[in-house]
Parts: sequence; C-alpha cells; structure tokens
Amino acid sequence: MKNTLFVLFLFSSLIADPKKRAREFGVPFPGTPGPLNAITDVDGVEVGHTNIISGSGKLIQGQGPVRTGVTAILPRGDRSLEDPSFAGWYSLNGNGEMTGTTWVEESGFVEGPIMITNTHSVGIVRDAVISWRANQGSADGSGYWWSLPVVAETWDGLLNDINGFHIKEKHAHDAIRNAKGGPVPEGNVGGGTGMVCHSFKGGIGTSSRIININRELYTLGVLVQANYGDRKNLSIAGVPVGMEIIDLMPRDNYESPSEGDGSIIVIVATDAPLLAHQMKRLARRIPMGIGKVGGYAHDGSGDIFIAFSTANSNVAFANGKVNVEMLPNWMISPLFEATVQAVEEAIINALFAAETMEGINDNKAYALPQDRLRNVMKKYNRID
Amino acid sequence: MKNTLFVLFLFSSLIADPKKRAREFGVPFPGTPGPLNAITDVDGVEVGHTNIISGSGKLIQGQGPVRTGVTAILPRGDRSLEDPSFAGWYSLNGNGEMTGTTWVEESGFVEGPIMITNTHSVGIVRDAVISWRANQGSADGSGYWWSLPVVAETWDGLLNDINGFHIKEKHAHDAIRNAKGGPVPEGNVGGGTGMVCHSFKGGIGTSSRIININRELYTLGVLVQANYGDRKNLSIAGVPVGMEIIDLMPRDNYESPSEGDGSIIVIVATDAPLLAHQMKRLARRIPMGIGKVGGYAHDGSGDIFIAFSTANSNVAFANGKVNVEMLPNWMISPLFEATVQAVEEAIINALFAAETMEGINDNKAYALPQDRLRNVMKKYNRID
Amino acid sequence: MKNTLFVLFLFSSLIADPKKRAREFGVPFPGTPGPLNAITDVDGVEVGHTNIISGSGKLIQGQGPVRTGVTAILPRGDRSLEDPSFAGWYSLNGNGEMTGTTWVEESGFVEGPIMITNTHSVGIVRDAVISWRANQGSADGSGYWWSLPVVAETWDGLLNDINGFHIKEKHAHDAIRNAKGGPVPEGNVGGGTGMVCHSFKGGIGTSSRIININRELYTLGVLVQANYGDRKNLSIAGVPVGMEIIDLMPRDNYESPSEGDGSIIVIVATDAPLLAHQMKRLARRIPMGIGKVGGYAHDGSGDIFIAFSTANSNVAFANGKVNVEMLPNWMISPLFEATVQAVEEAIINALFAAETMEGINDNKAYALPQDRLRNVMKKYNRID
Amino acid sequence: MKNTLFVLFLFSSLIADPKKRAREFGVPFPGTPGPLNAITDVDGVEVGHTNIISGSGKLIQGQGPVRTGVTAILPRGDRSLEDPSFAGWYSLNGNGEMTGTTWVEESGFVEGPIMITNTHSVGIVRDAVISWRANQGSADGSGYWWSLPVVAETWDGLLNDINGFHIKEKHAHDAIRNAKGGPVPEGNVGGGTGMVCHSFKGGIGTSSRIININRELYTLGVLVQANYGDRKNLSIAGVPVGMEIIDLMPRDNYESPSEGDGSIIVIVATDAPLLAHQMKRLARRIPMGIGKVGGYAHDGSGDIFIAFSTANSNVAFANGKVNVEMLPNWMISPLFEATVQAVEEAIINALFAAETMEGINDNKAYALPQDRLRNVMKKYNRID
Repeated sequence: MKNTLFVLFLFSSLIADPKKRAREFGVPFPGTPGPLNAITDVDGVEVGHTNIISGSGKLIQGQGPVRTGVTAILPRGDRSLEDPSFAGWYSLNGNGEMTGTTWVEESGFVEGPIMITNTHSVGIVRDAVISWRANQGSADGSGYWWSLPVVAETWDGLLNDINGFHIKEKHAHDAIRNAKGGPVPEGNVGGGTGMVCHSFKGGIGTSSRIININRELYTLGVLVQANYGDRKNLSIAGVPVGMEIIDLMPRDNYESPSEGDGSIIVIVATDAPLLAHQMKRLARRIPMGIGKVGGYAHDGSGDIFIAFSTANSNVAFANGKVNVEMLPNWMISPLFEATVQAVEEAIINALFAAETMEGINDNKAYALPQDRLRNVMKKYNRID
Repeated sequence: MKNTLFVLFLFSSLIADPKKRAREFGVPFPGTPGPLNAITDVDGVEVGHTNIISGSGKLIQGQGPVRTGVTAILPRGDRSLEDPSFAGWYSLNGNGEMTGTTWVEESGFVEGPIMITNTHSVGIVRDAVISWRANQGSADGSGYWWSLPVVAETWDGLLNDINGFHIKEKHAHDAIRNAKGGPVPEGNVGGGTGMVCHSFKGGIGTSSRIININRELYTLGVLVQANYGDRKNLSIAGVPVGMEIIDLMPRDNYESPSEGDGSIIVIVATDAPLLAHQMKRLARRIPMGIGKVGGYAHDGSGDIFIAFSTANSNVAFANGKVNVEMLPNWMISPLFEATVQAVEEAIINALFAAETMEGINDNKAYALPQDRLRNVMKKYNRID
Repeated sequence: MKNTLFVLFLFSSLIADPKKRAREFGVPFPGTPGPLNAITDVDGVEVGHTNIISGSGKLIQGQGPVRTGVTAILPRGDRSLEDPSFAGWYSLNGNGEMTGTTWVEESGFVEGPIMITNTHSVGIVRDAVISWRANQGSADGSGYWWSLPVVAETWDGLLNDINGFHIKEKHAHDAIRNAKGGPVPEGNVGGGTGMVCHSFKGGIGTSSRIININRELYTLGVLVQANYGDRKNLSIAGVPVGMEIIDLMPRDNYESPSEGDGSIIVIVATDAPLLAHQMKRLARRIPMGIGKVGGYAHDGSGDIFIAFSTANSNVAFANGKVNVEMLPNWMISPLFEATVQAVEEAIINALFAAETMEGINDNKAYALPQDRLRNVMKKYNRID
Repeated sequence: MKNTLFVLFLFSSLIADPKKRAREFGVPFPGTPGPLNAITDVDGVEVGHTNIISGSGKLIQGQGPVRTGVTAILPRGDRSLEDPSFAGWYSLNGNGEMTGTTWVEESGFVEGPIMITNTHSVGIVRDAVISWRANQGSADGSGYWWSLPVVAETWDGLLNDINGFHIKEKHAHDAIRNAKGGPVPEGNVGGGTGMVCHSFKGGIGTSSRIININRELYTLGVLVQANYGDRKNLSIAGVPVGMEIIDLMPRDNYESPSEGDGSIIVIVATDAPLLAHQMKRLARRIPMGIGKVGGYAHDGSGDIFIAFSTANSNVAFANGKVNVEMLPNWMISPLFEATVQAVEEAIINALFAAETMEGINDNKAYALPQDRLRNVMKKYNRID
C-alpha cells in the first residue's frame, strides 16, 4: 500500500455506470417501474453517497486499504428533520445494527435521514447525524432536545480496513449534503462500496413500482445495500444462476466468515398514505423478495429493513389533533406485491451495477459477468 | 344436496394418492429429503387427519355441502401432552388464527397437539383438545390445571358450508387418535380438504430435509395447509407456471373474497437441539420459502407458522434445574436453508396431491394439471 | 350437589351491589374519573354479562358446581361488527389466551365484540361470536367471509367445574345481546364470576378517567377480569394490605396451582383519536398499574391486554383513501398516566365488589373485608 | 465558565458516598438483598464508571459546562467478550436508544460489555467498544469479524453541554478498564452523572436479591440509570412522597422538554440458569418496579431494559452441540418478583445517593432531602 492515503470522494453525479441495468439487459421482472426505476421515484426522497476508496495491497490497520462509504436516504429531502414520516421496521435476521429502531417502533415515525455504512462505523455516523442536526440551529440545537438517528450497516471487511475506522464525521455530513433526487448511483458506491452479494461484488441497488389502487397511482421505491447470500442459491428471475456460474468466487487470502455471512439493508419508500402499522406490514414482506433471489438469512447476516411513507406531511409534530390519510388495509395488497417485486429487482440491480473490486490483502470480489449471465438466462428460456 | 348427511371419515391409511409427488415428477428441488419426504421423518412426529365430505349442490347453511376437516400434528406422539417441545412461532400476515401462541411465545414451548382446521371451527377444535386432555385423566383432568391448545386455520368457504359449523368435538378427537408416523396423506385431506392455493386446488403438503451439522445428521420436516396465493405469481422451481397456465381458475358462482385471500399455515419440526429463541428463527425463515412459490402475503391471508424441536425431551416440566442441549447459533444456518427448501417443496406437494373438487353452489377448484405442467417445465428447461 | 342443574342467568340490570366502591369508601386514587367511573364512560362502549351459578358441594365433572360466565365488551355497541376500532394489544405474561390478537396486531383494528370467559370455554365463545355474526345476515353470513373473534379468559377452576364445559353458545349470545351502556356490574359477574385475586374473591372491575389534552376532554375507561396475584404483595393506594390481612386465604380442598397463578385480562377504551400503534403504547402501560397493586406476573398468570379507540368511526372498511384523526405522540402522555391510574382502580374495584363465594368441593374465596381494610388504611394514614 | 476545561476522572474506588442507602435509612423494602445490595452480588459482574465534570455557568456549545460520563457493565468481567451470556431485552417506551438489541433478540445472547452514556454520545461509545475489542487482538482484531455493541443512554441536557460531544473514545475505554466487582458507586457517577429523576437529582442506582428456588440460592442484581418521572407521582415504599415534597423542583433557565421526559435504562443480572426467552421474561417485569416508584413511561422517555444470566458459561461459541442448564418456567416466578423488588430499590437508591448538582446555564437539580423524607415516611407510618 502506498503511504499516502488517496481518498476519493465520488459523489453521485460523477458516477456514470455504462453497464445496463437488469431490466434493460432483459431480465423479465414483473410489475411497472417508475421513470427512474429507483427509490427517488417517490417524490421528495433523496439519496446521497460518500465513498472512500484508497490504497491497495496488504492491510495495515488504520492505514487501509479503504473500500467503504456512507449512503444517506432523506425521506423528505431537506425537510426530513422537521417532518417525520410514518414508518415501520423489521429484522429478518438481527446479526446487524440499525440504530433508532426502538423509537421508530414506538413512535411510528422515522425522523431525519436514514444512513447506511459499514458495521464498525455506525457509531460515528450516528453521532454525526446529531452534530449535523445541531448545526442546523433547529430545535435540537437548543441543547434541550435529542436525536435518535437511524443508521444501518453491512460488513465490508473482506475488502476494507474496517477496523481502521476510516469513516469520519464529515463523510456522513457529506452524504447528507449530497443527497438529491434523480437517478441513484448503484453498485460500488456509498455504504455499498465494499460489499459482496451471493459471492459476486454487491453494493447499492434500487428499483421502483407504480401501483394503481382505486384509480389512484402510487409509487413504491426500494434501495438495498446488498452484502448477503451464498453463490449456489443465487436465482435471477427464477433461473438458478448460482448453480451455473460456480467460479469467480471471491479471492479471500485470509480466513474469513462463512460464505453467506454478510447482510442486507433494505429501505422501502412509498407515497401511498399508510399508517405506521401498515408500513411495518410492508417491511415484513421484504424477506419474500430476498427469498426469490436466493437468500435464506444466514446466521451471520444482518437483514434489517425499514419502510416509510412520504404521505401525511406535517403530522408528527402537530400542535393538536391532526388529520392523516389512510388507505384501508383491504386495499393495500398491491403495495405488498410491489415491495416483493422491487426488492428482488433492486438486489439484481446491485449485482448488475457493481464492478470487480480488489481490496485489503489483494482480496477480490468479481462482478457478475453479464455475458455469461445472458447465456444462462437463455438456457432457461428467460431472456430473448 | 341430499337431505341425509353422508359423512366420510377418510383416515390416513385409506387415502392412496396415485399421483406422483413433485420430486418424483421431476421438479428439481435442492437439498436431500428424508426417507418419507414428510414431517414424519422427524422421529416421533405423528400426523392424523379427519375429513368431512358430504353433499353437493346449493348451499343450505347448516346442511352443507361439507368439504372440511381437521389435521392433528403430535410433536412427540402420545407423549405430546406430558412433554412439551421447544417452539417458536411467527405471523407473516395475521389475517388468521393460531390459538395458544401467546403461551408458546412466553414459555418457549408447545404443549400437546397442534391442530389445523377451517376458520370458523377453531373454537370447537380448541375446546375439544382440552376435553380430550381432561379425558386422559392427566394433570388437566384434576380440574385444577388448564390447557392453551394450539389450533390454526385457513378458510374453506369457497367449497365448504363454513357457517354450518360441521366440525364437531369428535372430529378433533378422531384426528388426534388417528395420528401416526409414516407417510402423510396430502392434498384434499384433514384441515386441507377444501382449500385452494394459487387458484388451483390446494390442501395439505409435506416435505423434509436431512442436514449434516458438525458430522451429525439432523432431520427437518414441514407440513403446510396451503390456501393462499394468486395464480399469476405461481412459480415452481423458478418457472413462471402461473403466467403459463392461466385458465382452470376456480369456478365461483357467488361474489367471494379477492383472489389471493386465503392463508397458509406452516408447521416446522426438527430433531436438532434448538432452544425456543432459535425455533423462532426457523419460523421467521418460512416467508422466504413461500416467496419462492409466489406468495406475497395478501392482506386477506393468514400466514401463521410454528416450529418445534423434538430434542430435549422431559425438560419443560422438570422438577429442578435441568440440562438441555443446544446447537450454537453459528452452526444452524443449514437448518435455515432447509426450512426454506422444505416449505417450498411442501407447498408444491400440496398442489400435486390435491384433486379437483366441487363444493357449495357447484363452486369448483381444479387440480394443477400435471401434463400441462410438464410442458411448461420443459419450456423453461427445468425438467427432463 | 343437586342432580338437577339450576342455571341462573343473572343479567346486568338485576345485580345490585350494595357495597361501596373503592373511591367512595375513601381510597385516595389520583385523577378524575368519569360520571360512572366505568369503561362505559367512553361513549358507545357497552358491556354485557352472563353468569352461570348452580349447584354446590362435591365436583362431578360435567354436572358442577358451576361458577362461571361470559362478559362481552362492545366497542361501538351494536355497530361493533361493521365498524372496527383502532386497537393494540400486549401480553405481559402469556400463560393465557386472547384469540384474534394476531389480526389485531396485523390490521391495527379490533372487529366486533371482545369476550371474556373461563379458560376452557374460549373455544365455544369464539365460535359463538361467529355464529352470532352469521345470524345477523351481515357480510359474514354470505358464507364467503370470515371472523377472527377476540376472546380472552382467566381460570376459575378453584370454584368452578371448569372441565364440565358449562358455557354454551347461547351464554355467549346472551352476553352480547345484554350489552349496554350505563353502570357496569362488578365483582362476581360475567367472566369474573368464579375468579380470585390476591387470594381474595376477585372478578370484574372497572374505572375511568377524564383527561384534558390541548383543551379537549377525553375519556379513558378500563375493565378488568382480575384473577391474579398473591396475598402478601397486595397493595392498595400504596398501603401494604397483603402484609396486614394475612388470614381469609382461599379454602382449597384439593391440590391446586400455586398462589399467584391465575391471570388478569385488561380492556382499555378511549375516545381519544389514537392510531393503532398508539393504542399498543397504552396497552404496554397496563403492567405499571398492576405493579402498583402488587402483581408481578407470576409464571402461571395470563396477563393479556387490549386497548381500543372509539374515535375514527367508519375508516377500517372505507372504500378508498380516508381521513383519520390522530393526536400526535408528544401530547398523549396524560393518556398513559390515566391508563396506569384506571387499571389500579379497576382492580381494587373488583376486590371491593366481589362477594365471598363457595364453589366445587366446598372450596371458598373470601371477600376483601372492608371493615378491616379501613383499619389498615388508617394505620398508614391513607384514609380519613 | 472557565475557558480551561477541567476534566475529572472520578473512578469507582474514589467515590465514597457518606449518605445512607435507602434500606439503611429505613425504607421497608421486601425481599433479601445480597451482601452488597448491588448488581455485583452476581458473581463475575463488574461495573466501571467514567465521569466528566467540568466548568460552570453559561453554556458554550463544545466547551461546556460538562456533566456527563460513561458506565460499563461487564457480565463476565474480562471474559465478557469471548463468553456471551443468555440475554433478553424489552423496551417499555422506546424514546431512547440501546444499540445491539437486534442481535440480542436474534441470538439470545449479549456479547461484551453493556455501556450507558448520554443520548448524543452513544455513537462514539459504540465504536469505542469495537476499537477496544480490536485492540485486544481477539477474533475481532483479525479484521474479519464484527461487533454489535450494546450501548444505551439517557438525556442529560438539562445540566450537560450534550451537543458539545464531550465523551471521547478514551472515556469509554476507561469505563471498561475500570470495571470491577465490589460496591458500586451510585448517584452522580458514570452515565448517571447529569441525570434527573422524578425532578430530583437522579443517576446510577443498584440493588440485589437472593432467591431460594428448589433449595438452591440464586442472586439477581439490578443497575439503573434513572432519569425519568415527574414529581407528583414519586412513591417510595407506597408513600406518596411526590405529593408531599413539591418544592425543590429543578431550576431550568431555558425552555426544556416536559417534566417526565427523560428515560430509565435498567440492567438485570442473575446467576440463575435461564435461557434467552426466559431472560426476556425478566426484562418485561421491569415496568412493574418502575410503576411502583411512580413512572408511567411518558412519551419522551426512553425506558429500555436488558437482562442477562451469567450461568451457562462457554456455550455461545461452542464448537458443537453443547449442554446448557435451565430452570423450568414453572419454578422461576421468584425471579420475577425479585426483579420487580430490586428495580424499585435500585431507583430509590439512585435518588438517595445523588447529590445536588448545578450545570449549564446554572440549571440545577436538587438531591432528595433525606430529613424531610423521613418526616414524610413517618407521616404514613412506613418508617420507625
């Protein structure tokens, strides 16, 4: 590794992914995506990434190599702090962290940004959200109020010097500041920078669906940080890809956790007016989308999910009794189906976008090879 | 409908299903099943069915037609009462009932038989378990102790006079008495008699897996009462069967609940020594198996699951500190994978075994047509 | 015991309790009760009791003596079926049953009446709610819809022939039909007929509070079926009554469960516009009220609670997006405090109202002796 | 405020509390405490505090005044990392944070130390536990494994410059290093330094109970960081102290959160061999102890609890099937009762030990005045 630490901040707008996304490639996903096929199709939702990629070669703890980052999801853009959103969360397998969930469960709302980073940087990102908030001069800045930020993680220790604690306060602040609408960079970006999924290079993926309920259109979007799964169970649109492409396994020059350890964080956003307990219902559908891709929530996996609704603005902190809109339970099954669909597609999108990466100790995770994938999909008659 | 009520008790041993099961048919399921590919591969587990099939034609509430039944699963055969098993439960979508779960959650054990019937007969079956228990002259018979039976249900009102309350105490008693090891009848039997799954005829299905952990073999078995799902999402071994076979939809001569309403009850048994909180972990993997077949837990679906371990006999009511065996968490992922696999296969087995059935008002659910299925599976190169 | 079974149906209006209630007696409870100091202070809430009291002397299973009953709480009177209420539930200790809770948790609503009876009659009461509903000719009567009734229980086997299954369908129907507003009979009535609490005679108790939030008055009411607790921990308004009155222990002529086994079911109603997740918050405050009286949720106790809001009428089954009212979380603490207060007072009211009762095998539970209680309260300067 | 920051590290052994503890004072608590009447009566449990107290006068964010700290509880002393303990957690009111609980819930174990600090320093303390662990050269230090530390908090912003982020990594490391058995400092120490409880000065408190189950003695210990409650509800041994001592309210020179906001973190330890699901049962009894003192879990309160058992050493990471000891459920009620008792006493101990403190902006919280308390207790005949 070079002695000089070369830190790249690759902001959202600079990342151009020349590779096709899964749907353009021809993977036959059900349902109708929004214009961006991204979580940002939900009006107001913003995403920002900060990446830190530096060094190569042998691990020297504290020096690198570094392959990590931070992703910020703002449910209501820069109004996310003052205007919480109805939310629910669910842990399929809790070998992971998502701070702030106890208050999400209790209050039925998510306040402020949702952050994703690596496992050992959750703390600094969490406190950084508070310092960022205090710096806004908002209620919290008075010194009399508190914040309980939502920060999740997956483990990037195969490629990243995770015990070097390279994420600093400013990386979290930058991710929040960088957040915007529009296309969402996928793959090796933000919190997903150093991640591995079904033993291919993983990372950030996103997708969305448009749903018609009672002649109104609603949007549901998903963002994943995918770092879970073993190879043999990888399934794309029902095709047993993991049984067909059995090479290109990660190069791991030291003993590491079992294959299948890792994690997946899933964020679901919708503009449909669902209440807190209904958002939790959405969150509990997420495992079915993961199951379709081949996950089974390995013991070492932190599979933790949060879902929020951008409807019902300005209700959480109202000064009195307030009206909120609700879709009755019996009408919301299409949102359940959309959740399962968009989770599946977002994971596959992460695999499609991620590029081969080398990290600490020359460890390496390979990109899903799209040419070979095409042949496999053809073998099972699932692509033209 | 005939005025006379012709009640058939079709006990397990009398039901010969000439149709192939899914694996014999050639569906390529992963994993290694036990000798029976049934929940009864788990030593000591017994299953009994009582069916009530009578009448035809127009519904006359209280008279029929009747297409219903009761299924009993005994975790430890006739020692199930005195010797509770570590257990955990999970509700993916709670539009259903499984009584007794509050005590399962609290105590970490399941006591006595687990019963499955139709939605409107849960009560009588529940009290019947108590009367059966009181009749044994066991502790409960003293008049000083209580029972909190586990009784689950799915809704068979498309075919059955469900508001006629045709299940009586003796049907529940018979199901318990009939319980035995060995092959488990599938399809239109027991609680599954009148059920519909992915808009084909559904019902009872079962499967099992043998898992090697640390050079010891463990068995995990699953039994489902499958009554959920819409057609278009039906997927068999990743093949989009529901997009290919779009006819043979149920004949429903009156307005009925939405397609996809319905439910699935899943029972998981294993002889692996897992503690209560670990059994719950198994139960929470079940949605991933359902997701692979195409379920997404429609609002109207009661998708409720229970998992128990037959290891650790005679510990719940011990007279003092007692030793129990435990597999450490880090070793149990193969059981998670087996759960997902066996749930998928058990559902498909239910679809394979179920026969076309007519019920009230000439409503009708069609069996999955195996000949056409073969062609579909061939189209996607998933069968020879 | 007489061979003839003499069944008394003692309906609400016939029970005149000449004894003072706790507050009139002078127990210094905090907070302001409603006009009836009862759950029926919440507009629209109705309560009905059916009691069965017959026979005396030696237990002959199936013949008696009988000391049991059914209580029905209708959240919105006779509109309870068509118009579900936002609700939440919580189990402090799950050695008991409350059917229907899985759907309450999932849907965020309670549908139809809430029933309380003895442990071994939950099933028949549950199915009876369905038959009653089907008889109304409502949606359920079509044969295409289902019900998941909420039925809870405590164990009256010290005094009642509980394995005689004396509760019949009509007792449940009667309790529903008898339900009305106004004063609520307490003590040895309805489901509380044969109950024991802190080793005195227990049963049904109720209380209410009026709360001012943001210059609007809201009512919160509680009804308990109290059958829990050991003597030594009994505390009334902080006075260690159970350490002072150590005699008058139940006469138990056969081996029975440990003192402290038993259970308490608590129903909380309010007209404050809280959403489902907020109702659950109320339910989780109930243990603090029980703790003040001296409960600690003994292993054998089924301490299960449900809370509902009568605000937000006609929203659960709306035909599209609907407006609901919500009090923001930050304003609802007074409802938490009221819950704790009213639970405490309702339990004490049950003890004050219950009369000494003999049951099977001449077993006997004694009423709390009010004269001696007054002296104890004076000793600790908590009464004038 | 002085410009120079005067940081005091007051380690456990240096804090001599000359004031009597509540039991010595004569408060009549039920049950038998251990020799130290502290959580450290549970063999192996160690507690360490780091305090930071500096400056006075007007708040300058980042400069102080500082009134905060960190408390570390080590379930098995310096073997806490390698040897997790069965554990369960519960949130009575989730307006707070306890990181790591998702893995506690999933795994049934707590790994490593349990930390308590102020609300806005949870992150740095969390990552500091990981760096401390990585520094040990243990598995985690390999770079291939991860940690999910348990860090809880209450809010000290009335007295402390909480947005100044004065807790640094070394304060957390010191608290762990300082941890030891023996008497536990109470009051204004560690995480409890700047806390307020029932509008008196609060902080750390502890208590224990010895329980006889089946002729074996077990110890149960409790440690609280008490920062919750309003004055009027304060009750000590059933005496309405908060109605009698209505002055000495905190001096709050700026608008602050409502009285009753705040939080309480409770840690329960026992050497009784309970499994994970049984530890959760203990955790869910804690609200009853808080209720006795007068808490009702105000909306703004983060009332989060964790309970662990030091029995069953070396089982979590075993290399195969392993024996664990279990007390059957039916025998463990005395542990429930002990939990309620010890929680009550630990809170009162915190109030007894805490000294009057001034903090930012000359805000001030007053110690519970013991002389006046004695008169109140006498008035209600609860002290000699």
